[in-house]
Amino acid sequence: MTWKEKVHEVIYEADTKAGKAFDVALLIIILISLVLVILDSVDYISAEYHSLFLVFEWIITIFFTVEYILRVISIKKPKKYIFSFYGIVDFLSTIPLYISLIFASSGALLSLRALRLLRVFRVLKLVRFTGAGSRVSVALKKSLPKIFIFLYSVIIVSFIAGTIMYLVEGPEHGFTSIPRGIYWTIVTLTTVGFGDIHPVTPLGQFIATIIMLLGYGVIAVPTGIVTAEMTKENITRNTQVCYNCGEKEHSDKAEFCHNCGYNLNKPKNKEESKTVENED
Amino acid sequence: MTWKEKVHEVIYEADTKAGKAFDVALLIIILISLVLVILDSVDYISAEYHSLFLVFEWIITIFFTVEYILRVISIKKPKKYIFSFYGIVDFLSTIPLYISLIFASSGALLSLRALRLLRVFRVLKLVRFTGAGSRVSVALKKSLPKIFIFLYSVIIVSFIAGTIMYLVEGPEHGFTSIPRGIYWTIVTLTTVGFGDIHPVTPLGQFIATIIMLLGYGVIAVPTGIVTAEMTKENITRNTQVCYNCGEKEHSDKAEFCHNCGYNLNKPKNKEESKTVENED
Amino acid sequence: MTWKEKVHEVIYEADTKAGKAFDVALLIIILISLVLVILDSVDYISAEYHSLFLVFEWIITIFFTVEYILRVISIKKPKKYIFSFYGIVDFLSTIPLYISLIFASSGALLSLRALRLLRVFRVLKLVRFTGAGSRVSVALKKSLPKIFIFLYSVIIVSFIAGTIMYLVEGPEHGFTSIPRGIYWTIVTLTTVGFGDIHPVTPLGQFIATIIMLLGYGVIAVPTGIVTAEMTKENITRNTQVCYNCGEKEHSDKAEFCHNCGYNLNKPKNKEESKTVENED
Amino acid sequence: MTWKEKVHEVIYEADTKAGKAFDVALLIIILISLVLVILDSVDYISAEYHSLFLVFEWIITIFFTVEYILRVISIKKPKKYIFSFYGIVDFLSTIPLYISLIFASSGALLSLRALRLLRVFRVLKLVRFTGAGSRVSVALKKSLPKIFIFLYSVIIVSFIAGTIMYLVEGPEHGFTSIPRGIYWTIVTLTTVGFGDIHPVTPLGQFIATIIMLLGYGVIAVPTGIVTAEMTKENITRNTQVCYNCGEKEHSDKAEFCHNCGYNLNKPKNKEESKTVENED
Repeated sequence: MTWKEKVHEVIYEADTKAGKAFDVALLIIILISLVLVILDSVDYISAEYHSLFLVFEWIITIFFTVEYILRVISIKKPKKYIFSFYGIVDFLSTIPLYISLIFASSGALLSLRALRLLRVFRVLKLVRFTGAGSRVSVALKKSLPKIFIFLYSVIIVSFIAGTIMYLVEGPEHGFTSIPRGIYWTIVTLTTVGFGDIHPVTPLGQFIATIIMLLGYGVIAVPTGIVTAEMTKENITRNTQVCYNCGEKEHSDKAEFCHNCGYNLNKPKNKEESKTVENED
Repeated sequence: MTWKEKVHEVIYEADTKAGKAFDVALLIIILISLVLVILDSVDYISAEYHSLFLVFEWIITIFFTVEYILRVISIKKPKKYIFSFYGIVDFLSTIPLYISLIFASSGALLSLRALRLLRVFRVLKLVRFTGAGSRVSVALKKSLPKIFIFLYSVIIVSFIAGTIMYLVEGPEHGFTSIPRGIYWTIVTLTTVGFGDIHPVTPLGQFIATIIMLLGYGVIAVPTGIVTAEMTKENITRNTQVCYNCGEKEHSDKAEFCHNCGYNLNKPKNKEESKTVENED
Repeated sequence: MTWKEKVHEVIYEADTKAGKAFDVALLIIILISLVLVILDSVDYISAEYHSLFLVFEWIITIFFTVEYILRVISIKKPKKYIFSFYGIVDFLSTIPLYISLIFASSGALLSLRALRLLRVFRVLKLVRFTGAGSRVSVALKKSLPKIFIFLYSVIIVSFIAGTIMYLVEGPEHGFTSIPRGIYWTIVTLTTVGFGDIHPVTPLGQFIATIIMLLGYGVIAVPTGIVTAEMTKENITRNTQVCYNCGEKEHSDKAEFCHNCGYNLNKPKNKEESKTVENED
Repeated sequence: MTWKEKVHEVIYEADTKAGKAFDVALLIIILISLVLVILDSVDYISAEYHSLFLVFEWIITIFFTVEYILRVISIKKPKKYIFSFYGIVDFLSTIPLYISLIFASSGALLSLRALRLLRVFRVLKLVRFTGAGSRVSVALKKSLPKIFIFLYSVIIVSFIAGTIMYLVEGPEHGFTSIPRGIYWTIVTLTTVGFGDIHPVTPLGQFIATIIMLLGYGVIAVPTGIVTAEMTKENITRNTQVCYNCGEKEHSDKAEFCHNCGYNLNKPKNKEESKTVENED
């Protein structure tokens, strides 16, 4: 086992003791980094501790730099990692401070602020610690096409409703343009309801009432889609088919067919299959 | 193949290369048209580019005019198209600019603004590009009668609650009339909660609390209706069609048609069809 | 057939032509009455048309008086009607104007306003026209005990959260007492969010964030309860059991068993039942 | 039966007449206590009746003290009770007034207010009266891991969206720091929408629109999870217990145990149990 393989084991796998320790350390550093970014954005905290934060930030950046380099070196196909989701997240988590050095000299303060905030995307590094492929995300993925058709209808409705509200209420009540009308319609349809813009005229309030009732009935749709998909997941989760009678819908823990009592784990031998033939 | 047939193929069908190109062109022009309507409603953009927008608008209007005429000419039953949903949408998408010419001369400025905004209904032209008859809309259609009964109860509740709030809070806290009380109740029941009107007295806040908890329990109902309908869709998705009577909605495990009793696995031959007659 | 029986037929039944005409007339008068109550509450409309409204109101009141008397006279057990839900609604819909005559002389203006508004409860008369016992209400009724347990937990949570917010934010940020804190918590948990009171301190906003995420997860519960109940309704809706094989889960329109093809409407005769015995 | 056993019966059990009477008395005293805490927090009520409230509070405190001592004395394993959920709630419900005596002398007014409010946790004593182990809480518990993954994703999204909004809108429109941006994002994602902070710039409103539509689709997820779990509860409610292996969760149509293959309709006799051994 070369040192590269050893590094690979520590960084990429969580089976060994060293691998687990590395994961825990990484997790803690990511969380500290996030807390730093967030605290640094609060004026009165930043004013007092900014230089302290900068020191910590440099330590974290160097850690991430070393981690990134080791990840690239220790893997067999570096290109595949570099252009993968995690590769890009790792890269973007590392560079902000370096680039800020360059920009600082050129005095572009605003983009500097943006750059420093880029570090918040380090939160995506946390995704690595989640069990991927959970059933929730499977059901969500299956619902996506239906949810897109649904969002498409919502957008069409909000275009029309936003225009009508712009016409009825007009700029004097906050509906200064169609985009604002559309913004208001979506705020209302999604039942968020900030109240920064709201209808004032009786006619506008009447139309708003109809939009809200529509939204009320319509909020059921994405819920219905995801729920139906999840219920289906539950029902069709067990894919075992009985070798004897062909019954399909066994419950999760089924060992024997609930229809004929045949052992589900035992493949049928050819003699038997001739006598009890599944017709479909 | 006459030129009418060729035009029909290009406009109405998407199978040929020309048909697909026409669809893409139409899609792009609709989207440009929508962007124009929306940008034109933003004051500071309109002030600068209004004349440019008008030129584009005329080009689009002429395109839609030609498209409408060709659609009417190339179809066998023009009347059916003209009075269909798409026919009306296509007509309304074309005329605003023409009418605005007439109205402009008579100086009716307000109605002119309304007319120009009519163009936003062109968004409905996009519906043509959606796969119709999706399962979502089927489930929605089936849920409609139940959702109407539900909305009917919501309206009855909001009439009573709106009147009580008008009585309890009174005009000095924004509840200036029963319609406003009803408006507030629906804003609250649907969990939108703009906050433009809100209870101030302790009694009013107590009643509001009850209305909100009611709304909280009640928002479950449309969701429940649609979800139950969609889950049913999933369950009865069995695509077997009876060879004898054509019945489609068999349950998953069906071996025989539940409508006429015909064996679903057996393709129909002509002799049998005489003996097993569909009774319904 | 006495005149009482004739009146009974017209008022209580909707089978005959006269009965249907009566129902339609009643429906229209209720709706007109509601519109009058609502318009009368709008100041600038009331100022102009109040006397006109009063004339209409007297006509409607006399109609309802006659209707109420006829209902009492024509029924066999008047007491049962008088103390039934509809009897009380009918009575309360009739008296406001009569009582307002008495009170007007004693000058109790405020209670007069309340009394006149009582007429809005006529909206409940509309319930008569809804098909009672719809499946939605069945599912709702079955969900009620579970929803009560749920609301009970919500109230316990909102007591504690309301007190904490009162402590953290204090009267200077609008949380002037525990009841207001509870009111705010319910406004937030139900995702209504008026914004009339909202946390200002960082700690208060942090607690609010947790309450909101809690509410977000928790809003799923009543929906889940009602949906599960409705899905169950759907599944167990068809109670037909096949006389031949005992299969239970037939779809709605099933005429024949989908398992064995037996006619579901044909009771099994005893000879057959001996040969093909249902084992359960 | 010693007096300790008698006390145990009255306090811990609800079977006897005395036990039921004790439960009712306890329930009423808890509710009175809660009303006192809440009314005492309302300034103008507290100003007038504070001394009266204090007398009542002392009576309730003494009652709870006696109850707590009796509970500790009459149970066999006092330690187990003292450190149980109910033991801690009972203790915390009793002490506030005693501690306030000590603190009052030292003049720590603010912590005194906090202490007095601790009494609101007496609401948790009500949990004792709820039927534990309801199916709702079972379904909720099963959904918890999935809901945590979901909340985890919501938090990741709100970190990123909050930072973007902080960058786009900036301190001049209320987004004074990243924590406030995150607070705003969660207020929006959960569809609460207070409106205390809201986007003002067109770009901010556009991003807000996307966040809202995201929240709209995403609110479906916890609902879907809980509903799917509850529907599953309904489906697997089949109460047949296998005579052979004791397995409980059979599907509706199960004829044979899916765990051991034993015929569910056949009661077990001892000879057979030797031949059909549970393999798992």
